[in-house]
Amino acid sequence: MKARKDEELRRKIYTVVFRSDTPAGRLFDLILLWLILFSILSVFLESVASIRQNYLVYIRTAEWFFTAIFTIEYLLRIYSSPKPLRYVFSFYGLIDLIAVLPAYLTLFISGGQYLVVVRAFRLLRVFRILKLSRFLYEGNILTSALKSSMHKITVFIMSVITLVTIIGTLMYIIEGDESGFTSIPVSIYWAIVTITTVGYGDISPQTPVGQLLASILMIIGYGIIAVPTGIVSVEMARATDEAKEKCRFCRGPIHPRTARFCANCGKERASADAPQPLEQAD
Amino acid sequence: MKARKDEELRRKIYTVVFRSDTPAGRLFDLILLWLILFSILSVFLESVASIRQNYLVYIRTAEWFFTAIFTIEYLLRIYSSPKPLRYVFSFYGLIDLIAVLPAYLTLFISGGQYLVVVRAFRLLRVFRILKLSRFLYEGNILTSALKSSMHKITVFIMSVITLVTIIGTLMYIIEGDESGFTSIPVSIYWAIVTITTVGYGDISPQTPVGQLLASILMIIGYGIIAVPTGIVSVEMARATDEAKEKCRFCRGPIHPRTARFCANCGKERASADAPQPLEQAD
Amino acid sequence: MKARKDEELRRKIYTVVFRSDTPAGRLFDLILLWLILFSILSVFLESVASIRQNYLVYIRTAEWFFTAIFTIEYLLRIYSSPKPLRYVFSFYGLIDLIAVLPAYLTLFISGGQYLVVVRAFRLLRVFRILKLSRFLYEGNILTSALKSSMHKITVFIMSVITLVTIIGTLMYIIEGDESGFTSIPVSIYWAIVTITTVGYGDISPQTPVGQLLASILMIIGYGIIAVPTGIVSVEMARATDEAKEKCRFCRGPIHPRTARFCANCGKERASADAPQPLEQAD
Amino acid sequence: MKARKDEELRRKIYTVVFRSDTPAGRLFDLILLWLILFSILSVFLESVASIRQNYLVYIRTAEWFFTAIFTIEYLLRIYSSPKPLRYVFSFYGLIDLIAVLPAYLTLFISGGQYLVVVRAFRLLRVFRILKLSRFLYEGNILTSALKSSMHKITVFIMSVITLVTIIGTLMYIIEGDESGFTSIPVSIYWAIVTITTVGYGDISPQTPVGQLLASILMIIGYGIIAVPTGIVSVEMARATDEAKEKCRFCRGPIHPRTARFCANCGKERASADAPQPLEQAD
Repeated sequence: MKARKDEELRRKIYTVVFRSDTPAGRLFDLILLWLILFSILSVFLESVASIRQNYLVYIRTAEWFFTAIFTIEYLLRIYSSPKPLRYVFSFYGLIDLIAVLPAYLTLFISGGQYLVVVRAFRLLRVFRILKLSRFLYEGNILTSALKSSMHKITVFIMSVITLVTIIGTLMYIIEGDESGFTSIPVSIYWAIVTITTVGYGDISPQTPVGQLLASILMIIGYGIIAVPTGIVSVEMARATDEAKEKCRFCRGPIHPRTARFCANCGKERASADAPQPLEQAD
Repeated sequence: MKARKDEELRRKIYTVVFRSDTPAGRLFDLILLWLILFSILSVFLESVASIRQNYLVYIRTAEWFFTAIFTIEYLLRIYSSPKPLRYVFSFYGLIDLIAVLPAYLTLFISGGQYLVVVRAFRLLRVFRILKLSRFLYEGNILTSALKSSMHKITVFIMSVITLVTIIGTLMYIIEGDESGFTSIPVSIYWAIVTITTVGYGDISPQTPVGQLLASILMIIGYGIIAVPTGIVSVEMARATDEAKEKCRFCRGPIHPRTARFCANCGKERASADAPQPLEQAD
Repeated sequence: MKARKDEELRRKIYTVVFRSDTPAGRLFDLILLWLILFSILSVFLESVASIRQNYLVYIRTAEWFFTAIFTIEYLLRIYSSPKPLRYVFSFYGLIDLIAVLPAYLTLFISGGQYLVVVRAFRLLRVFRILKLSRFLYEGNILTSALKSSMHKITVFIMSVITLVTIIGTLMYIIEGDESGFTSIPVSIYWAIVTITTVGYGDISPQTPVGQLLASILMIIGYGIIAVPTGIVSVEMARATDEAKEKCRFCRGPIHPRTARFCANCGKERASADAPQPLEQAD
Repeated sequence: MKARKDEELRRKIYTVVFRSDTPAGRLFDLILLWLILFSILSVFLESVASIRQNYLVYIRTAEWFFTAIFTIEYLLRIYSSPKPLRYVFSFYGLIDLIAVLPAYLTLFISGGQYLVVVRAFRLLRVFRILKLSRFLYEGNILTSALKSSMHKITVFIMSVITLVTIIGTLMYIIEGDESGFTSIPVSIYWAIVTITTVGYGDISPQTPVGQLLASILMIIGYGIIAVPTGIVSVEMARATDEAKEKCRFCRGPIHPRTARFCANCGKERASADAPQPLEQAD
C-alpha cells in the first residue's frame, strides 16, 4: 500500500520536475530559470572588487541559498527519475551535479593559499547557465544544418589553421621582437587575430614587408569568410526545404504551406474529402 | 455652415499633413524631412565644444525655431486627424510629442546643478530622426524576412550569450586583473568585443593560455557569423520568391518560377505563345 | 586624296587606341596598363619621405615622362574618335584629362607656400587607376546583382545610419569627455567603427552602462551583417539563374548547361535536327 | 630473379608510402601526420626565448631526429615511385625536399653573423605543415565551388584594391603625418585594415573630414563583404546540387530535386510507388 503511494508521489514529482507540458511543470521550469539567472548574477557581482568588499556577506548568503535549492532539486530528480543511474550519468545529470559541487568543496578545501583555486571552483558554478539550453526547443533546424555542414567546416578550419601557421612563421622572421612578434606561437596568435578581422592592435606590423603580408592576410580573411557562410546557407536552405510538406503524387515540395494544388503536377493537395480530378480522368 | 467649412479645412489639412500621395502632401513631407535633418544637425553642432562656445546664441535660436514649427505640426496633426486620440497614442504620435517636449522642459527645470540632466533631455530631441522612417516605404521585404527569421535569430543570440558568459568567466580566472580582466562582467564585455570581431584592444589577453582561449573564441566567432547570414539569406530568398509572379486566374503567387501549375487554384500557368501539348491530349 | 588618307590613318589609330579586339589594340592596352601602374608607383614612392629626399630628381623625370605619354594618348584619342566632343565629356574622357592636368598645373601654380596644395593636385593623378576599370570585362553579373539590390541596400544603410545616430547620442550622454566621446559627431563615428566591427580602440567605453550599450550595438552589428549578405546572395542567385538557357517548350531553365532534355517537361532541348517526340504524339 | 624481387619490394613500399587505402598505408600516413605535427611543435618551442635558453639541446636533438626520418621517407618515395622524376618535380615532391633541406643547410652556412639567416632557413621547415593537406580528402566541393567563383572574386578583389588606393591617397592628403598617415603606401595599408574591418587602431583618423571619409569606407566595407559571400553561396549551392541524386537510367544528376524528367536522357524519374497518370494517358 505504502509502495503504491510512494510510486504515486514519485510519478507526481516526475511530472513536475522533468516534464514541462503541464501547468505545474511549466511553473517549476520558470522558477528554476529565474533562480539560475539570479545565482549567476551573484557570481558576477562577487567578482566585482568594489561590490565584494561591501556586500560579501549578502552574496555568500545568497549563494548558500541557491546551493541549497539546487541540491534539493538534484535529489528530487534522482528520486523521481524512473532510471536514476541513467539520469546521474546523462549530460544534464552531470551539469546538475557540477552546479552544486563547488559550494560544498569550499568547506573542505580552505585556507589562505588555496583561496584562488577555490574561487575557480566557485566560478565553475557559472556552468549552471548550460541548464538554460534545456529551455530552448527552437534550435532543431539550426543544429541539423550545422551538423551536416560540420564536415566541410572542419576542412575549412584546418585550412585556416595551416594558413595562419605559415603566415605567422613568416611574420616572425620578417618582423622580429621589436614589433611584438616575440615567438612563433605569438605570431600565430596575431595571424588569427588578423584573419578573423578582430584586430586588437596590441601587436601590429611595423616594417613595409610585414604590412604588405598583413594586407594580403586581411584580404584573404575578408574573402574566405564567404566560405563558412556559403556552406551554412546551403545547408540551412536544404534543412528548411526538407522540413516542408511533400506532394502525395509527385513527391515534389508543396510551397507555400497554404497552397491547395501541387505546383509540379497540378493535383489537389491531399485531403480525404477533396476530389482528385486527374486521377478520375484516367 | 461653419461646421461644414471647418470639416472641409480639416480634410484639406489632413491631406497635406498625413498623406503623401498628393503634390501638396509630398512637398510638406519633403520640407519636414529637411527641417528634421537641420534640427538634428543643430543638436550635433551644440555638442561640439568649440562651436558651442562661439555660436551658442545662433544654435539656441535655431532650436526654438525648429521646436515652434514641430509644435505647430503636432497640433495640426491632432486637429486634422479623424481619430485624434488614436493618433496621440500611436507610435508616431508619441515620437512627435517626444520630439518637442525636451525644449519646453528646459524652461521649467533649470539652474546650474541640473544643467547636465537638461542637456540629456535636449539631446533626446535626436529621436526626431525616427520620424525619418515615415519616409521609407521600401523596407517591406526586409522586415518580412527579418520577422520570420526572428525566432531562429533569438535562439542564435541566446547561444552566443551563453558562450560569451562561459568564456568570459574562464578568461577572468585565467588572466586576472593585470591584463584588464578586472571582473566577470568586464570579461564578458571583452568576450563580446572578441566574438563579434570588433576587437578594440583596450583589454587583450597576455598569458599563453589566455591567448589560446581567445584564438578559439575568435575562430568560433568567425565561423558562426555564417549562422545568422544563412538564416536571413534563406528567409530573404523565400520573401523575394513569394513576392514574384502572380497567377492569371487567382492572383496568387506562382512558385517556383518554373512551376507549370498554380499552387493555389490548380490551373495551368498562362503562357499564350507556349505550346500546351498536355491540355490538348486530354 | 589627302583627306581619304587622313581618314584611313584616323581609322587605323582608332582601332589601336579604342578597340581591344585586334592584336595591335590588345598590345596598346597592355602597354598602357603597365604605364599607368608605374606612374601610380612613382606617386607612391614620392610620398615616402626617405625616398623623396634621395631620389626626387629621378621620380620627377619619370613623372614628366608618364605625363608626356598620357598627353599624347589623350590627343590621339580626341583626334581618332569619330565623335571627339562626346569622348571628351564622357566618363573616361574626363578621367583621361584629370590624369594629365595636375602635372601641368604645377608649372603655373608654384612657390613655397602653395607646395602642399600643388602636392594635392599631383596626387590626384592617382585617379589614373580608374582607367584600369576599362580593362575589366568580367563584372557584368556582379554589377547586375548589385544594381537590383541597390534599393534594398539603401533602405538598409539608412536604417544603420539612424541606429548609429541614436546610439552615438546616447553614448555621448552616458560616457562624456573622459572616455573620448567629446561630441555627438565623434560618438557617431565611434558607433560606426563599432557596428561595422572595425573597432580601432582609439575611443572605447569605460563605464559599465556604456559597455553594456556597446555590447548590444556589437551584437546588433554582428547580426545585421546578415542583411546585406542575404540581399546580395538572393540577387546573385537570380542574376546567375537568368543568365541560364531557357527551355523552348515550357520556358523552364535548362540545367546543367550540358543537359539534353528539359527537367520540367521532358522534351529534348532545342536543336533543329533532333526529333521532338511529344509534339509529334499530338 | 633479383630484379623481380626488387620490383616486388618496390611495389610493397609504394603501397605503404603512397597509398592510403590499405591498413599499412593508413598507419604510415597516421604516424607521418603525428611526426610532422611534433616537428612543427619543436620549431615553435625553439622560437620562444625562455624555452630556447633552457632546452636548446633537446630541441636540436629532436630536430635532427625528425630530419633523419623525413630524409628516409623522401628517399623511399623516390625509390618506390614508378616515375621518380615526375614525383621529384611534383608539388608534394618539392615540399618534401624543402622540408628536409634547411636542417642540412645549417651545417654548411654557419658562423655568428649568419645565424639569423640560418634561423630563417630552419623556420622554413614549418612548410612541412603543407604535407598535412595530403591528408584532407574532404575539400572537393569546397575547391570546386571556389574554382568556379575564382573569376568573379578576382574582379571583386581588383575593385577593392582600386578603392583602397584612391581612399588611401585621399586620406594621406587629408590627415598628413600627425595622425600616422606618413606615406601613401602606409595610408593604403590603413585603408585595407579598415575596409576588411580588422581595425588595429595603430593608425586612425583624427580630423573631422578624415573621420567622415573613414566612416564611409567602413560602411562600404561592411556592405561589400556581402559580394564574395553571395558569389560563394551561389557556387556552393550549384556544386552541392550537382553532386545530388543520380538518374536510374543514365546515372546523370537529377536537377532540380523536384524535376520529373532526367535532364540527360529524358526518361521519367524513377519512383515505383508514385502514380504515373500521364504515362497511362498516352
